Amino acid sequence: MILDKNIIAEHNDQLLADHKRRFDFLAADIPNVEAVLDKLVAFNIAIPSWALGTGGTRFGRFSGGGEPRSLEEKIDDVGLLHALNRSSNSISLHIPWDIPGNTAAIIEHAKQHGLHFDAVNSNTFQDQPNQALSYKHGSLHHTDKGVRQLAIDHNIEVIKYGEALGSKALSVWLADGSSFPGQINMRNAFNNTHESLQAIYDALPEDWKVLIEYKPYEPYFYSTTIGDWGQSYLLASKLGKKATTLVDLGHHLPNTNIEQIVALLLSEGKLGGFHFNDSKYGDDDLTTGSINPYKLFLIFNELVEGLDAKGINHATGLSWMIDESHNIKDPLEDLLMAVEAIKISYAQALIVDTPALKAAQAENDVVVAEGLLQHAYRTDVRALVAEARLRAGAALNPVKLYRDAAVRSTLIGERGANTVATGL
Amino acid sequence: MILDKNIIAEHNDQLLADHKRRFDFLAADIPNVEAVLDKLVAFNIAIPSWALGTGGTRFGRFSGGGEPRSLEEKIDDVGLLHALNRSSNSISLHIPWDIPGNTAAIIEHAKQHGLHFDAVNSNTFQDQPNQALSYKHGSLHHTDKGVRQLAIDHNIEVIKYGEALGSKALSVWLADGSSFPGQINMRNAFNNTHESLQAIYDALPEDWKVLIEYKPYEPYFYSTTIGDWGQSYLLASKLGKKATTLVDLGHHLPNTNIEQIVALLLSEGKLGGFHFNDSKYGDDDLTTGSINPYKLFLIFNELVEGLDAKGINHATGLSWMIDESHNIKDPLEDLLMAVEAIKISYAQALIVDTPALKAAQAENDVVVAEGLLQHAYRTDVRALVAEARLRAGAALNPVKLYRDAAVRSTLIGERGANTVATGL
Amino acid sequence: MILDKNIIAEHNDQLLADHKRRFDFLAADIPNVEAVLDKLVAFNIAIPSWALGTGGTRFGRFSGGGEPRSLEEKIDDVGLLHALNRSSNSISLHIPWDIPGNTAAIIEHAKQHGLHFDAVNSNTFQDQPNQALSYKHGSLHHTDKGVRQLAIDHNIEVIKYGEALGSKALSVWLADGSSFPGQINMRNAFNNTHESLQAIYDALPEDWKVLIEYKPYEPYFYSTTIGDWGQSYLLASKLGKKATTLVDLGHHLPNTNIEQIVALLLSEGKLGGFHFNDSKYGDDDLTTGSINPYKLFLIFNELVEGLDAKGINHATGLSWMIDESHNIKDPLEDLLMAVEAIKISYAQALIVDTPALKAAQAENDVVVAEGLLQHAYRTDVRALVAEARLRAGAALNPVKLYRDAAVRSTLIGERGANTVATGL
Amino acid sequence: MILDKNIIAEHNDQLLADHKRRFDFLAADIPNVEAVLDKLVAFNIAIPSWALGTGGTRFGRFSGGGEPRSLEEKIDDVGLLHALNRSSNSISLHIPWDIPGNTAAIIEHAKQHGLHFDAVNSNTFQDQPNQALSYKHGSLHHTDKGVRQLAIDHNIEVIKYGEALGSKALSVWLADGSSFPGQINMRNAFNNTHESLQAIYDALPEDWKVLIEYKPYEPYFYSTTIGDWGQSYLLASKLGKKATTLVDLGHHLPNTNIEQIVALLLSEGKLGGFHFNDSKYGDDDLTTGSINPYKLFLIFNELVEGLDAKGINHATGLSWMIDESHNIKDPLEDLLMAVEAIKISYAQALIVDTPALKAAQAENDVVVAEGLLQHAYRTDVRALVAEARLRAGAALNPVKLYRDAAVRSTLIGERGANTVATGL
Repeated sequence: MILDKNIIAEHNDQLLADHKRRFDFLAADIPNVEAVLDKLVAFNIAIPSWALGTGGTRFGRFSGGGEPRSLEEKIDDVGLLHALNRSSNSISLHIPWDIPGNTAAIIEHAKQHGLHFDAVNSNTFQDQPNQALSYKHGSLHHTDKGVRQLAIDHNIEVIKYGEALGSKALSVWLADGSSFPGQINMRNAFNNTHESLQAIYDALPEDWKVLIEYKPYEPYFYSTTIGDWGQSYLLASKLGKKATTLVDLGHHLPNTNIEQIVALLLSEGKLGGFHFNDSKYGDDDLTTGSINPYKLFLIFNELVEGLDAKGINHATGLSWMIDESHNIKDPLEDLLMAVEAIKISYAQALIVDTPALKAAQAENDVVVAEGLLQHAYRTDVRALVAEARLRAGAALNPVKLYRDAAVRSTLIGERGANTVATGL
Repeated sequence: MILDKNIIAEHNDQLLADHKRRFDFLAADIPNVEAVLDKLVAFNIAIPSWALGTGGTRFGRFSGGGEPRSLEEKIDDVGLLHALNRSSNSISLHIPWDIPGNTAAIIEHAKQHGLHFDAVNSNTFQDQPNQALSYKHGSLHHTDKGVRQLAIDHNIEVIKYGEALGSKALSVWLADGSSFPGQINMRNAFNNTHESLQAIYDALPEDWKVLIEYKPYEPYFYSTTIGDWGQSYLLASKLGKKATTLVDLGHHLPNTNIEQIVALLLSEGKLGGFHFNDSKYGDDDLTTGSINPYKLFLIFNELVEGLDAKGINHATGLSWMIDESHNIKDPLEDLLMAVEAIKISYAQALIVDTPALKAAQAENDVVVAEGLLQHAYRTDVRALVAEARLRAGAALNPVKLYRDAAVRSTLIGERGANTVATGL
Repeated sequence: MILDKNIIAEHNDQLLADHKRRFDFLAADIPNVEAVLDKLVAFNIAIPSWALGTGGTRFGRFSGGGEPRSLEEKIDDVGLLHALNRSSNSISLHIPWDIPGNTAAIIEHAKQHGLHFDAVNSNTFQDQPNQALSYKHGSLHHTDKGVRQLAIDHNIEVIKYGEALGSKALSVWLADGSSFPGQINMRNAFNNTHESLQAIYDALPEDWKVLIEYKPYEPYFYSTTIGDWGQSYLLASKLGKKATTLVDLGHHLPNTNIEQIVALLLSEGKLGGFHFNDSKYGDDDLTTGSINPYKLFLIFNELVEGLDAKGINHATGLSWMIDESHNIKDPLEDLLMAVEAIKISYAQALIVDTPALKAAQAENDVVVAEGLLQHAYRTDVRALVAEARLRAGAALNPVKLYRDAAVRSTLIGERGANTVATGL
Repeated sequence: MILDKNIIAEHNDQLLADHKRRFDFLAADIPNVEAVLDKLVAFNIAIPSWALGTGGTRFGRFSGGGEPRSLEEKIDDVGLLHALNRSSNSISLHIPWDIPGNTAAIIEHAKQHGLHFDAVNSNTFQDQPNQALSYKHGSLHHTDKGVRQLAIDHNIEVIKYGEALGSKALSVWLADGSSFPGQINMRNAFNNTHESLQAIYDALPEDWKVLIEYKPYEPYFYSTTIGDWGQSYLLASKLGKKATTLVDLGHHLPNTNIEQIVALLLSEGKLGGFHFNDSKYGDDDLTTGSINPYKLFLIFNELVEGLDAKGINHATGLSWMIDESHNIKDPLEDLLMAVEAIKISYAQALIVDTPALKAAQAENDVVVAEGLLQHAYRTDVRALVAEARLRAGAALNPVKLYRDAAVRSTLIGERGANTVATGL
């Protein structure tokens, strides 16, 4: 299914008058509104190929219908999203779930949707059929050199796929850990991981980055070998300048101040990118911004402040990606909501009165400093984000149009009601 | 595979001298050692049918070999465990994973292993093939009366299976909850749950109990309708005297004082039973006692004190069951370790100097009171637990004998290397 | 210091045009805007007498200046707040920190500020000079009947003070707990607490409520005898209809779903009132709404929905009170910010499209249901709250006026720079 | 009060026969028992001067009697402890709470008790009377260079005191942080801290270490500038080889795997030392080993394994210190219990069958590997620790002797019942 431009235009026409009224009211309060809009238009968030189907937990999975059955159909889904919001111009692949057969055709297929290929992701947390050695006890950290080499080779293969597609980064999330005290020697596991990553790093093209993700627990429940930002940072700094840390918002212990980690990694030149989602308890993989939207804003506030301090381009300086599991909602609606929440937070961060904030901080005027953040956050910036969409040729209200255009039922018609996409 | 009695006898003969030395040393310090041994011999922990295969997480499952392919083989596995430690004389079934075909034959099969049937468990967190309505949005709490009725009917069917097998309790764990603010009306969901449970309660035979489990999150990640002990207690007290609360050790928020909950429920006459496991982060379902054995001891300390205060028989007064997911270890070895850890904690609780403790508490002599608990806990009671096994006709060292007798490889030979048992 | 009405009028005149523009824009979107405004005007939050000075932690206290030196000056401070925002028409006293000498004069003093007396609070977590017995090991839960009686007598004395002042509720927060396993018998402690509370309950005037607060830890660090909502509920239901539960937002374990507790207590007729604050880690006692404003909104969403379902008046049906520790900010500014955050959340909850929400919930349309809450929350309702203030005769921007009128420096001039108010 | 050697000898005589029986039984199982005993004898844990009085929380403090009134009396108290257990041969001072007047006399006084001076601690989390500038908004991270310099100068002064006393390390715990979003610029705060620490580092004698402590929250409740091990590590690695990380067991978010942090810091050469205590919720500062003794053992298991792997002497390679707040127990009894728990954990770690563990880990035999740790932990090593005390000339049962000798009442007689030592 492809969303006709006329459908979007018609949708916008109906909503335009009301939108205009809201935007004008809002714009009157924002001194640099055009600059803010430019940044919002330029800001895109990559969609992971594995988030296009219904997710599940270990207790079960309630599949929806019309899920993509192939890489081409995954690209089509991201194309639909991008047509609706013009904010997701790339797709992030996961190998071996998404092995591209005819690379040239796949690139061309993506290009027709205005899409390119974001970071490629390796998978060493599952065994593939007929795999010679098992990842049951880990991959890059394994005691057995043979298993480590298998995982290294797989990562290098993923880089090769990425190069063919024009990707510029490898994301490495390692499940490697232990579930019981004594199970592993944690020092050796860390050093093995370093050595394995070095081999992968050495195979990385010059203009690539490797993004090292961290996570405190799950699927192992006693230790994880790359368990927190400090461990990821340590590896990234040992490896060299192409290695950076990837922050998945759900991969933290309770009460962690994530925005401080973000500020620090950015300051040290080691922040590589994000996996956006939200959570209340653990790695819940809920829609970004659905549980604690103020936290999301505070993270963007650090990002905007920190990127500007270093003169880094907001849109291209880091890898921005969603990583969610859509167990309950229609995956495409969920992704539209996530992108909306991200752009709202970004817009709020863009309208913070930075000079006033710096002055208040310099005087330790806590009430004024906090009040400036609260003012930006309490401002209803939805019309600003909508205006950016309008200017980019997207829909004023993507979820509404998605429903009005009966996208899901069309997809079910095309693909069937019982398709199950690869993913968790 | 059935473990010959001679094998056990031979194993014990080899270890007996050393055991005797250790037991005698220990017994000299325990005034009422025979009474303690009697209690240890009488204490059995039920094995859940779903814990006999390799468990997994949403990220994958690394199956072992020789997993039971049928209810009969599950009973055989529990029979093996019981032969090894004489501490697990019952099995807890899960419907529809374990629908007994020929009930009389199943009962007879179990009896040959010295086993009976513990609480039966219903399952309304997964859809079965061709199910008319879906549990995607819950079961007993559902907005749709039809779905609630389906779940009620299923629970009543489970009771029927249980009655046929001689079970005396129904365990209800409800996944029902929500993943996003606004998704459900929490008050209505609670009241619907109450109404549904009432219908199930009314179908309960007079000599049965219904055990209401609680859990704060997973598989839903914003709210769970029976989320904590207070909610379970509230439902149980509304329903009546046959309804009690089931405590699963992994179903608590970080830092919860579980032993206080246990003491209070017991005092109020509403503690029904346990699902034993251990965890560091969430519902990790690790081997009981593997992460925080002192906590397990403190729970047993409250249990022994509270049961004695009420004159309730330790072995039969509550439902004792393991509920773990064996992702990494051989499931049977894992269960042997869990039972051992439970009995060690129970033995330590039995040797607490209760009169001295009461006296110290009365005087608020914190150092002495705490010291008495620490003394019992620091005592190495393994020889006591082993002696109880010896007297019951079991093995002095069950894990060692399990390995020496090559049980797993025999099971693989009998059942194949690629069997996958039902469960998570 | 008393804020002249002309000063407020002048302040409002300056801001009126801009306010009008914002309010009109907003009002156009709210169908029942007048009804919402009436509710906002009627809604008051009590100020605790102990929150008017600079708070501290165990590590130290950095006192500000001009802190109230007497009960009269505390009333003056609340009078100032009420003049600024017309949203805090009562003060909550803490005995023995605030023993009223001449009751009639105190009542008259308060009346001149338009204030009355909210719940009175007892204190059995500190020893007073020359106290016969110590609360070191607890009060109402103590093993020593003499200590329990001392604490009972104190609570009854607090009720007497409250009666004289026209208060209608007693708030009981018990520190009682233990710091080490074995220190106390938790069952006995609970039963002692019940018995002691019964004695206090029996002394309660017919038209009074007793509010039973719960808290998981601090100042004891192993167990707290009234540690969670379930324990408070259990006591309140044993005591009778005058006994209810008080929810302090900071008194929960990590990740607790507080709004679910609120919904359930309200549904069961056992929610008595609130202590508002915010926190990231524990009982941090930060400004309400400063860490997770969406959570505050979700709580108000349950409150509005639940109170309406029972036909209870929002303003008078529950006890609304702030309980914060102002370690860093000027206490009066902090309280103004807290009241603003509460009223914003309340306003957002009032504009939720309830019929649409119910319909979406009935159909399990998660995206629409959640979207309705997000829409209300993302709406910038500050002009609505300001309009309610304007209509009540208060300042459009209380913090700005507080600063413009140099309130703090005036208070320092009147009271001195080194005064230290009673409190934590 | 000084404990006469005869009293100890008499005490030991009474307990010796029973001790001998227990030790012999235990020793039979430990191949290298003499080597283990040597290590236990050599292992000392420093006592902080501020832990000798009754601690408190922000809610109050219930002082005991006979608390030390001067530095000399604090040294006397540590002398008493050391006489009782010969395991605490040093005292850690806190400036300005413990400014030594006549240094030579103080050193001599300590020497008479067999004590020397461990790490000196600076204090920039409280303002001292007449302090020119305030630490209300931090010290080394402050926006005001003047405040930073004040704190730098203070730390350098502390080093000078330490040099005079023969100390070899400076412990820096910074409260510096923020309680509200926006209050500080976290990047600048970190960089200011780095710059300030550099100035202190430059003033450090060549043979000194600076130990950089981290803590996630309290007394500030939004961010702490040195909040986790990663931040401490980052600063320590920027500063140079004299800078290391100090791990306080209570300074972690819920569920943190502390032993993994310890293993990693040790491996990277950046582990400087410990502050021992235990906790259930936050920085509870409870007696070491009182809440989760298995965790303490697992930490020592990593320490022994990691120190041996690097060939570092256990006793002298790191700084070992207790840091607790004794709110409920007699401080001296509490410290004796803490030292006992530490030595028990250390002894258990020393008897782990390392070659067997390495073999099991190499084969990923989880059951055997974990079982080896559990075996060491379940072994009752108290007689081993007691034997080490006996050989060192200390008491077999220090707490018993402390009580039998009526130490506390003697101290009250000497110092009075209402003394309050400096500290929290």
